[in-house]
Amino acid sequence: MAFRAAVAGASGYAGGEVLRLLLGHPEIEIGALTGGSNAGTALGSLQPHLLPLADRILEPTTPEVLAGHDVVFLALPHGQSAAVAEALGEEVLVVDCGADFRLREPADWERFYGSAHAGTWPYGLPELPGHRDVLKGTRRIAVPGCYPTAVSLALFPAYAAGLAEPEAVVVAASGTSGAGKAPKPHLLGSEVMGSMSPYGVGGVHRHTPEMVQNLSAVAGERVTVSFTPTLAPMPRGILATCSVKARPGTTAAAVRAAYADAFAGEPFTRLLPEGQWPATSAVYGSNAALVQVALDEAAGRIVVVSAIDNLTKGTGGGAVQSMNLALGLPETLGLPLIGVAP
Amino acid sequence: MAFRAAVAGASGYAGGEVLRLLLGHPEIEIGALTGGSNAGTALGSLQPHLLPLADRILEPTTPEVLAGHDVVFLALPHGQSAAVAEALGEEVLVVDCGADFRLREPADWERFYGSAHAGTWPYGLPELPGHRDVLKGTRRIAVPGCYPTAVSLALFPAYAAGLAEPEAVVVAASGTSGAGKAPKPHLLGSEVMGSMSPYGVGGVHRHTPEMVQNLSAVAGERVTVSFTPTLAPMPRGILATCSVKARPGTTAAAVRAAYADAFAGEPFTRLLPEGQWPATSAVYGSNAALVQVALDEAAGRIVVVSAIDNLTKGTGGGAVQSMNLALGLPETLGLPLIGVAP
Amino acid sequence: MAFRAAVAGASGYAGGEVLRLLLGHPEIEIGALTGGSNAGTALGSLQPHLLPLADRILEPTTPEVLAGHDVVFLALPHGQSAAVAEALGEEVLVVDCGADFRLREPADWERFYGSAHAGTWPYGLPELPGHRDVLKGTRRIAVPGCYPTAVSLALFPAYAAGLAEPEAVVVAASGTSGAGKAPKPHLLGSEVMGSMSPYGVGGVHRHTPEMVQNLSAVAGERVTVSFTPTLAPMPRGILATCSVKARPGTTAAAVRAAYADAFAGEPFTRLLPEGQWPATSAVYGSNAALVQVALDEAAGRIVVVSAIDNLTKGTGGGAVQSMNLALGLPETLGLPLIGVAP
Amino acid sequence: MAFRAAVAGASGYAGGEVLRLLLGHPEIEIGALTGGSNAGTALGSLQPHLLPLADRILEPTTPEVLAGHDVVFLALPHGQSAAVAEALGEEVLVVDCGADFRLREPADWERFYGSAHAGTWPYGLPELPGHRDVLKGTRRIAVPGCYPTAVSLALFPAYAAGLAEPEAVVVAASGTSGAGKAPKPHLLGSEVMGSMSPYGVGGVHRHTPEMVQNLSAVAGERVTVSFTPTLAPMPRGILATCSVKARPGTTAAAVRAAYADAFAGEPFTRLLPEGQWPATSAVYGSNAALVQVALDEAAGRIVVVSAIDNLTKGTGGGAVQSMNLALGLPETLGLPLIGVAP
Repeated sequence: MAFRAAVAGASGYAGGEVLRLLLGHPEIEIGALTGGSNAGTALGSLQPHLLPLADRILEPTTPEVLAGHDVVFLALPHGQSAAVAEALGEEVLVVDCGADFRLREPADWERFYGSAHAGTWPYGLPELPGHRDVLKGTRRIAVPGCYPTAVSLALFPAYAAGLAEPEAVVVAASGTSGAGKAPKPHLLGSEVMGSMSPYGVGGVHRHTPEMVQNLSAVAGERVTVSFTPTLAPMPRGILATCSVKARPGTTAAAVRAAYADAFAGEPFTRLLPEGQWPATSAVYGSNAALVQVALDEAAGRIVVVSAIDNLTKGTGGGAVQSMNLALGLPETLGLPLIGVAP
Repeated sequence: MAFRAAVAGASGYAGGEVLRLLLGHPEIEIGALTGGSNAGTALGSLQPHLLPLADRILEPTTPEVLAGHDVVFLALPHGQSAAVAEALGEEVLVVDCGADFRLREPADWERFYGSAHAGTWPYGLPELPGHRDVLKGTRRIAVPGCYPTAVSLALFPAYAAGLAEPEAVVVAASGTSGAGKAPKPHLLGSEVMGSMSPYGVGGVHRHTPEMVQNLSAVAGERVTVSFTPTLAPMPRGILATCSVKARPGTTAAAVRAAYADAFAGEPFTRLLPEGQWPATSAVYGSNAALVQVALDEAAGRIVVVSAIDNLTKGTGGGAVQSMNLALGLPETLGLPLIGVAP
Repeated sequence: MAFRAAVAGASGYAGGEVLRLLLGHPEIEIGALTGGSNAGTALGSLQPHLLPLADRILEPTTPEVLAGHDVVFLALPHGQSAAVAEALGEEVLVVDCGADFRLREPADWERFYGSAHAGTWPYGLPELPGHRDVLKGTRRIAVPGCYPTAVSLALFPAYAAGLAEPEAVVVAASGTSGAGKAPKPHLLGSEVMGSMSPYGVGGVHRHTPEMVQNLSAVAGERVTVSFTPTLAPMPRGILATCSVKARPGTTAAAVRAAYADAFAGEPFTRLLPEGQWPATSAVYGSNAALVQVALDEAAGRIVVVSAIDNLTKGTGGGAVQSMNLALGLPETLGLPLIGVAP
Repeated sequence: MAFRAAVAGASGYAGGEVLRLLLGHPEIEIGALTGGSNAGTALGSLQPHLLPLADRILEPTTPEVLAGHDVVFLALPHGQSAAVAEALGEEVLVVDCGADFRLREPADWERFYGSAHAGTWPYGLPELPGHRDVLKGTRRIAVPGCYPTAVSLALFPAYAAGLAEPEAVVVAASGTSGAGKAPKPHLLGSEVMGSMSPYGVGGVHRHTPEMVQNLSAVAGERVTVSFTPTLAPMPRGILATCSVKARPGTTAAAVRAAYADAFAGEPFTRLLPEGQWPATSAVYGSNAALVQVALDEAAGRIVVVSAIDNLTKGTGGGAVQSMNLALGLPETLGLPLIGVAP
């Protein structure tokens, strides 16, 4: 194996997903695994699905432990990545699964995260126009948020083709792993099973400025996104329903052609055949993004629905995909295209 | 008990929910129970939760069997209600849980259901302006669809107060019981658990014209509804996320006041305290509709989320509520306000 | 209403279920509601399904707050009930949903709970031989554990009829609400959805001595119970599969007759018709216990399966049922027999 | 790729799982895919998770279509395999995922399946003593049932070591995919979510004689199995709780040693560290079998719990594992050891 990778935050859901994928990656050797309060614990009791790593003991998240790797994945709480990255040196590939380096505008960061902006790194969504080239050879990657991944992939073709007005309405349902592994009463199985509920309504969810940033860049004008996330009774998956007003004269054929063009040659984004709509179960554990689109002629709107696995394409898979580009490896190496269903 | 009620279609989910509620209703005696292919079967094997009716044998759905009751609930496939109702006579209260008599415009019916329009009956959503009075004493009730119930309750206050532009975007998640009890591969537990998927996207769902009808009547102008239903991994519940552009000058306070006013004195619709968002689990088995609202100032949109139980307030509970009005009984009689949670 | 009741521990699942039932009880007025760390919080944010109590503020759990009621329900952590009960006085009916007063043998308590034994109160399972009379007029009730309720109801008829050897094997699946509302990582929705797992294997679960106590009393000899609880991906419900070796000469007819006799006249325990097996969904929110039995002739064993709602018959419903007996009210008053399904 | 494989019954859950694994197998090229009533349909609409095969059209299940492959997987209804296998010729490796060739005793087959016995093929559970050698180079494989896989792996070490009495009690919970993809009312998502229910109680489940056969062969005497399967609200997974009376003098250390010995060197069966119990989520999509064991000293019983994925180790993964042995490939080739969690 050509490269050695460490994972900081290996006990959480993001870190666990990165490890699940790295275990199947032919060019990566797994090095140090670190945890916060879980340092000293065997990984087997925290991530029992990662059998080959069951006996590995989590180390503390320190520069010394993370030193000496070719790649370091950071799956840390927001705000902790900058200090760790700085200590690692510029030649190490640092892949940050957190939010710290995603936003370009310091004001956006300050408004939604309430602290000083750490900077901006190349944004790890290769499917967006112009992004793939920036990721090749980079030594810093900001992994996109899970919702922005689902929504940006769903809407960028419409904006790139000039078919949509710059006001998007998005309602997305996420599996509970998107909320992390820290135990909170509203995330108990007893509370989430059999229930749907919204949160962060009214434009206050932290992923909103990231969607605005991505779509505005493609549209060439400021796009607003009215985003409502909902918590769905499932462990994984995001289903994003995205609605935009169609520009005058837009036809269903033009919409379909825009998506076919935008996804042509892409390994992971798929426009489904007409009449087939995406289900999150079809991408369970896979790095694929399934998309379908319709033109609602009565309402004059384009409706796009995308399905991803929030932990795979939305986090760990997106991270490995960008890592592959940064390391000069084939972009799809080690990444599952096939979901586990039913 | 003052009244005797029959239920046609007692083996399905709608009929079962009507019976669950009638069993707790102090003024209703349960009469004939009928089924289609299940005629001759004991109800206990089909609806094992209705213990007091376990030994009742389903009869065929004929005018003779349904004759002699004060109230007849129809929980039949679309298109079958008109003939049954006609045979029952005008003095019998007929409560149709199907779609046949909901729409006012024959053209809407023909376009979405593909058959001849049977007519229009008083629409059983007492909370809509002007509807309660029409229901008092009526002998025909068209029970609203589950999605139109959730969406109309969520949006009518904004339209009644003149705060919203006439273009609504609605994404709703429904429990699987909304799709009925006829077994189909995509409704298998193996398929729906752990998965979210959309259907009827692009304005083709049959509940769309019903929403348009309700909201246009309140708004006093044609309201378009871009409606996307999604299937959620839960047996019951609808969470409707509704987004409308705010008219210029709309303030968050004005929005909140409009909802407080619209729901004042209502027994089942509740505007939640600020900061608390509805979850479908809180209305599991109850006739309540929980609503919360936010003004997304950056996007200029009012976002309203409502949660109902699709089988209770969305079907059987709504039916009994309107029945109470028609029979001159207290509107809330026999209807649970308290959900079964967690 | 004739009686006033307080609930200590109103923010948890047991307390919430007691309140759900008391809200529908015609002879109970709800008095003080107390919480631990939640004192000072409105109940609406903690138990959003209990709409009529949404504005009630939790008070601290002190003798002063709980004084002046006819009935006090204790839904407190193990070990806290004795002190509270003592302060309330002997004339107050105290219904303890915790374990403190269930066991007769101090050694059992000490071994399984690791503290000093507080005493033994009348055991609130009226269906067990001899128990109903003891509960009439009592002022102290120990509400049984949820698993012992399901298992004792399933097996006592076989032991009462002398059909079973005194070695029971029990595997039970419980909904997650049985594990309470305190957030722990293994109870997160992300962890429990899509997963079954055992815990407390090998005779170490605290409900084991309670089952042994109940079944030994009926059998007239020491019965061992090899009990394995499992956590199932559902909020509510217990399905207990109980297996005992049949005594020589036992016939299927004799087994069936024993259960029919044992449940004759009982309002909540039901032997299902032959060929129909219980599902927990059929008792969702109801106080019923559904039971079916088979004789496995090849293995020489009687297999009994029972289904209850762990929060209703297994906790709050059992508590109210015994309360009714203690207060001289009809035993079934305010208790749902009908589940919420599907 | 060295071998070409056809899959008969590619639209069902077993066939889909075989294909999921073959798509990741480096030595298998996927040839013909056949279906029954689904012949002529694109696989993408039936198995949307198998993206690389989305455009493949199902062919009818005929000898002509299946001819010319090195390996043919049969995922057909019971009773159809013999005729197909005969037409394929003896040099083709036929892997039967159905039950037809699992049982040795014609009387067992006739009693549980009600038709003439087709014969007995090498049984595809390499972990059982003596089985691996038989599978090497064979051209016929009977893939074990999902429950017998979970139960045989859980109990054979205790019998091999002479620690257990020959009367096993087994209660197993299965995900709904074990019941197949043919739509039936009791398998609807509305019915299974939030519910546990037993079926085939009392020794009548068809997998019972298969367990008896496996365990008796290891024990060297007739072992009875009192088996109760239950349907759990999850798509995949089996959790088998197995209880046997310990022979006199059995110690916890001896039990643990027996399992450690039995699993030593095995690639897929794992005895978990003491104190850690298996969860089905940890083997979601993986070919691993996780096992833990306890000695209940009070009851004198050994309790063993195993977790597998019913579709992977329990069907498609077991099939591929045995195929590898038959073809002379490394036993673990193409088989995931790592589950998709959470």
